[in-house]
Amino acid sequence: MKIRLGENSYGKNAVQLSKIIRHPAYHEFRQITVNVSLKGDFEEAHTNGDNSKILPTDTQKNTVYALAKDHFKTSIEDFALYLANHFLSTQEQVTTATVEILEHPFQRMLLDGNEHPHAYISGGSEKRTTIVTKDAVNVSITSGIADLLILKTTDSAFEKYIKDRYTTLKETNDRILATKCIARWTFDKLPADYTAQYNSIRDVLLRTFAGHKSFSVQQTLFAMGQAVLETHAGVREIYLEMPNKHHIPFNLEQFNIQHENEIFIATDEPYGLIAATITRE
Amino acid sequence: MKIRLGENSYGKNAVQLSKIIRHPAYHEFRQITVNVSLKGDFEEAHTNGDNSKILPTDTQKNTVYALAKDHFKTSIEDFALYLANHFLSTQEQVTTATVEILEHPFQRMLLDGNEHPHAYISGGSEKRTTIVTKDAVNVSITSGIADLLILKTTDSAFEKYIKDRYTTLKETNDRILATKCIARWTFDKLPADYTAQYNSIRDVLLRTFAGHKSFSVQQTLFAMGQAVLETHAGVREIYLEMPNKHHIPFNLEQFNIQHENEIFIATDEPYGLIAATITRE
Amino acid sequence: MKIRLGENSYGKNAVQLSKIIRHPAYHEFRQITVNVSLKGDFEEAHTNGDNSKILPTDTQKNTVYALAKDHFKTSIEDFALYLANHFLSTQEQVTTATVEILEHPFQRMLLDGNEHPHAYISGGSEKRTTIVTKDAVNVSITSGIADLLILKTTDSAFEKYIKDRYTTLKETNDRILATKCIARWTFDKLPADYTAQYNSIRDVLLRTFAGHKSFSVQQTLFAMGQAVLETHAGVREIYLEMPNKHHIPFNLEQFNIQHENEIFIATDEPYGLIAATITRE
Amino acid sequence: MKIRLGENSYGKNAVQLSKIIRHPAYHEFRQITVNVSLKGDFEEAHTNGDNSKILPTDTQKNTVYALAKDHFKTSIEDFALYLANHFLSTQEQVTTATVEILEHPFQRMLLDGNEHPHAYISGGSEKRTTIVTKDAVNVSITSGIADLLILKTTDSAFEKYIKDRYTTLKETNDRILATKCIARWTFDKLPADYTAQYNSIRDVLLRTFAGHKSFSVQQTLFAMGQAVLETHAGVREIYLEMPNKHHIPFNLEQFNIQHENEIFIATDEPYGLIAATITRE
Repeated sequence: MKIRLGENSYGKNAVQLSKIIRHPAYHEFRQITVNVSLKGDFEEAHTNGDNSKILPTDTQKNTVYALAKDHFKTSIEDFALYLANHFLSTQEQVTTATVEILEHPFQRMLLDGNEHPHAYISGGSEKRTTIVTKDAVNVSITSGIADLLILKTTDSAFEKYIKDRYTTLKETNDRILATKCIARWTFDKLPADYTAQYNSIRDVLLRTFAGHKSFSVQQTLFAMGQAVLETHAGVREIYLEMPNKHHIPFNLEQFNIQHENEIFIATDEPYGLIAATITRE
Repeated sequence: MKIRLGENSYGKNAVQLSKIIRHPAYHEFRQITVNVSLKGDFEEAHTNGDNSKILPTDTQKNTVYALAKDHFKTSIEDFALYLANHFLSTQEQVTTATVEILEHPFQRMLLDGNEHPHAYISGGSEKRTTIVTKDAVNVSITSGIADLLILKTTDSAFEKYIKDRYTTLKETNDRILATKCIARWTFDKLPADYTAQYNSIRDVLLRTFAGHKSFSVQQTLFAMGQAVLETHAGVREIYLEMPNKHHIPFNLEQFNIQHENEIFIATDEPYGLIAATITRE
Repeated sequence: MKIRLGENSYGKNAVQLSKIIRHPAYHEFRQITVNVSLKGDFEEAHTNGDNSKILPTDTQKNTVYALAKDHFKTSIEDFALYLANHFLSTQEQVTTATVEILEHPFQRMLLDGNEHPHAYISGGSEKRTTIVTKDAVNVSITSGIADLLILKTTDSAFEKYIKDRYTTLKETNDRILATKCIARWTFDKLPADYTAQYNSIRDVLLRTFAGHKSFSVQQTLFAMGQAVLETHAGVREIYLEMPNKHHIPFNLEQFNIQHENEIFIATDEPYGLIAATITRE
Repeated sequence: MKIRLGENSYGKNAVQLSKIIRHPAYHEFRQITVNVSLKGDFEEAHTNGDNSKILPTDTQKNTVYALAKDHFKTSIEDFALYLANHFLSTQEQVTTATVEILEHPFQRMLLDGNEHPHAYISGGSEKRTTIVTKDAVNVSITSGIADLLILKTTDSAFEKYIKDRYTTLKETNDRILATKCIARWTFDKLPADYTAQYNSIRDVLLRTFAGHKSFSVQQTLFAMGQAVLETHAGVREIYLEMPNKHHIPFNLEQFNIQHENEIFIATDEPYGLIAATITRE
C-alpha cells in the first residue's frame, strides 16, 4: 500500500500590518492581521525537496505589505480579495488561495465632543474578520465578527431542561447571559459596501441580543441569526458561536445573607459552547 | 549563622466577581478582579506548620464575595478600603492588609441613541485599578489605569539621539506613537468622588497625549504627568509606564515603491519601555 | 424563502480534571482537559426555547467528573470513547457525540536516579490529544500530539525557491529549523494499547525530524508522516501541522562582525504555516 | 509647588535571542529573553525633549545581539553582567544599568539512549533567570528559577486554621499540593560556576518539596528556602513565591459515589499566593 501526499497547504500567518490613510483633514488608522494560505501543485516539494514551485512565505509577507499601499483602501474584504487574486493569477502552480484578515478596532479620540484628527484609542476586544477563498472557477467571501463581548443582566432564563442522576444545576428564570460571540456570514448577493453591511449586521446582532427574552443561549443565538437574515436579503447564511461566559450566583445564604441575585462568580472555564448555522431553505 | 524568615505575605489572587446593582430604571453591571494580601504574625506557620493564625485564602475569597453585597456600591477604591479595614480589624495577627482591585470596562449598549437598561458591551482593554494598603497607623490609596491602548499617527518625532557603533535606527520627524499605558497616582488630599476624579484624570491623559508635539516618549510621558498634577491639586504624584508599541515603516523602496509613510509593521516585541514618576517638590 | 436552523451543536469545553490513581507503591497523577459536543434533535430548543431535550452543559461537566472515577484508568482514547458512548446511549435525542481530551504532561521527579513515588514535575508544553466522534453507526477515533516544540540547529536548507519582485529572503543551506508541531492520526486497525502506540509514533516523529536532511519544512513534514505510516501498519493517515518558528540570522556584518551563523532573532510572528495529510493509496 | 521628574528609567524589553555554540562534536542551543533598563541623567529628555543623552532602545537591542557573539558563552549571569558593564562604562550619563535575562529550556533529544548532537526538544515551562544591577560602586546579582511547575499527590495537609463566619473550606490531611514556583537568590559569595550552582539549588528545591510532610504551603516554602541556605553557604537569601494551584476534590458523594480522594477539579483562578524571603541572621 503506497504512501502518498494528501491535502496540503502552506502560507504565512500573523502578518501584522498597520496603515495610515492620509486624508486632507484627518488620518485614518487601520491595523490588520493577515493570514495567507496556498494550495496547488506542491507534491515535488514534499516528496523530493524540490522548491521550484514554492513562493516562500517570507515573500508572501512582503507582498502583503507591498500591495497594501495601493490596494488596502476600503474594506478588509476588498483587500483580501485583491490578495487572493494576486497569488492565484501570478503563481500558476497555485490552484486555491485563501486570505484571512482580522481588523483591530481603533476609534478616533473624542475630545470635547469632537473626533481628534489623528489620535486614536483602542476600540475593545471586538474584531472585524473576513475569509476569502478563490480558485480558477469560484470565489467564496465570508465576513464576520470575532470576540464580540456582550452581556445582559436579565431577560435570560434556563429552565425545564433534562434532569438526570448528575444534575446539580438549579433552574433560573433570571440569570446573567454573557458571551464572546463569533459571527460569520456568506452572501447570495455581494454588498456594494462591506463596511456598511458589517455595521448594519452588527447592529442587528446587538439589538436582538439586548431585546430577546431568552429561554436558552440556543434560542437567543437562533433569534440573532434569524434577525440578520430577515433584515439582510443578500446574506445567504450566518454561523454563530456563543461561548457561555458563566456568571454563577455566589451562595450568600450559607452566610445568612439574603440572596437577591446580585453577587456572582465570573468564570472563564469551563464554559458552555453553543454553535449553529442559520440558513435559508 | 542562623536561618530565619524574612519579609512574607500571603493572600488570594484573581477573585473574579461580578455584581448587578439594581436601580429602578436600569441595571448597573460591574466586574472586578480582587487580590488580597496579608502581612502579620505568621512566623509559626512557616517554621512549625502552626496554622492557628492563618485565615485561609479560601475564606478571604468568600469574604470578598460576602462583603460585596453591601459594600461594593460605588468606587473600587471605597470597596478596597472597606476590605482592607475588614481584614485588619477582624484579624489581630494581621499588621498590614493590601487589597488590589482591577475593574473590567463594560458600557451600556447604545441603540438608536439610547443606553439600553440592561445590555452591555465590553469597553475595551482598558481597566481601572486601585491598590489600598493599610496598617494600624497608615493607609495608602493608589488609583490608576492599566492597558490604556492609545496611538497617534503624527506629531511624534525621534531625532538627535546618541549614535554609536551599534546604531541602525533612522531619525524620524514623523512616526506613529503607540503605547499601552499604565498610570498610577496617589493623593495629597483624597477626592470626594474617586470615579469623577478618575474620569477627569483619564481625560487629561488622553488630551495631553493627543495634543503633544512629541520629541520622545519620555517627553510626552512627562507632559502627561505634568498636566495631571497641574489640573488636579489633590494628586501627590503620578507614575506612568509607556511601553513603545513600535510601528516600523515597511521598506517599500526596496521594491521601487515610493515611501510615503503609510505602511508599517506592527510589532509587540521587542519593545521600548519608558517609566517615570512625576511628582511635586 | 424560509429561514431555518442548519448544522448545530452544543457542549461543555475546558473541563479541567485531575486524577490520582493510587497504586500500592506509587501514585499515578493525570491531568486532562475535556471538551464535550453533542449534535441531535435540538431544533425546538433553538426555535421555540423548548429545553426538554437539552442536557445542560453543567450536567455534561458533572458527568465527566463522575465517570472519571471508574472509567479514566488507562488512555485518554479509552475514556473519550466511554464518555461518547455514555452520552449517545443515555440521551436518545443525541445523534452524534464528540469528546475531545487533551492530557497535560507530568513526569515523576527523578531524585538520585529514582522516580519519586508521588512528586511530579511538569513535562513541558507537549500534550497528548484525542478526538472521538460516535453516532449510531460509526465511531471515529483520532489520536495526536499538540505543541511539540522541537528544533534542530543544522541539516536544514531552503534554496532554489521562486524569486519574484517581492523576494528579499536569502537562500541558505544551513538554518535553524524549529516548530511547535501538531500531529493527528487515524487508524485502519485500532491498537491494543493507545499509549504504547503514542509513544512509538512520537519516537518516530522525533527521530525522523532529527535525522532528516531537510530541503524545506514541507519535505521534513512529509518524511515524518511517511515514517510513521511505514512503521505503523495500523495507522490509516496522519495530519501534520508545522508552524515555522523562524530564527532569523542577526546581521552582524553591519557592525563589521563576522557572521558565523551563530546569533539569531527568535520570532513568534509572522510565521510560516505548513500543513499536510500523509495517507495511503 | 513645583512639578518635577522623580525616579525614571527606560530600556528595551523582550529582546528574543537564540545562539548556536558550535562545539566540534555537537551544537549547544541557547534561547534567551533579555530586558535592559537604564537610569541616569535623563531629565532634559523628559522636560525639554532633548535626546542628546538618549541611547535609543533600538541600539540597546542591537548591542545585545552584537555582544552575544563573543560574550554569551557560559551562564546568563555572566552575559548579563557583561551587558550591564558595557552600558555603564560606555554611556557616561548612565548611573545604573539593569539587565534581566530569562533562559528558555531546551534539552538535547535522547534517541536510543544517546543525546542527539543537534536536535532539541523544549524542556518545559521552567525558565532560568537572572537580574544584574550595576552602578559606579555596587553590583547586585540575583539568580533564579521561574515557572517551575511541581506537584505532589500526598504528604500535604491543611488543618487547624482560623474558622470564622465566612469559612467554608474543609480541613484535609491529604491533599494535592501544586505550584508554579518562582525562586530568586542572592549571594554572600559569588559562585565559581553559576550553572553548577543553579542545578544544585534546583535539586535541593525539588528534593525538599518532594520529601516534606507539609502542614501548609508556608511551611513547605520555608523548608525549601531553609534547605537551600543550609546546603549553599554562599547564598545570602532566597525569595520564594508559590501560587497554590488548587486541585479541589470533586463532590462525588452528591451522586452516591464514594469519595476516595481521586477526582479533582484543576483550577487556575482564584489562587492562593504565598511569598517569603528566607535569610540569614
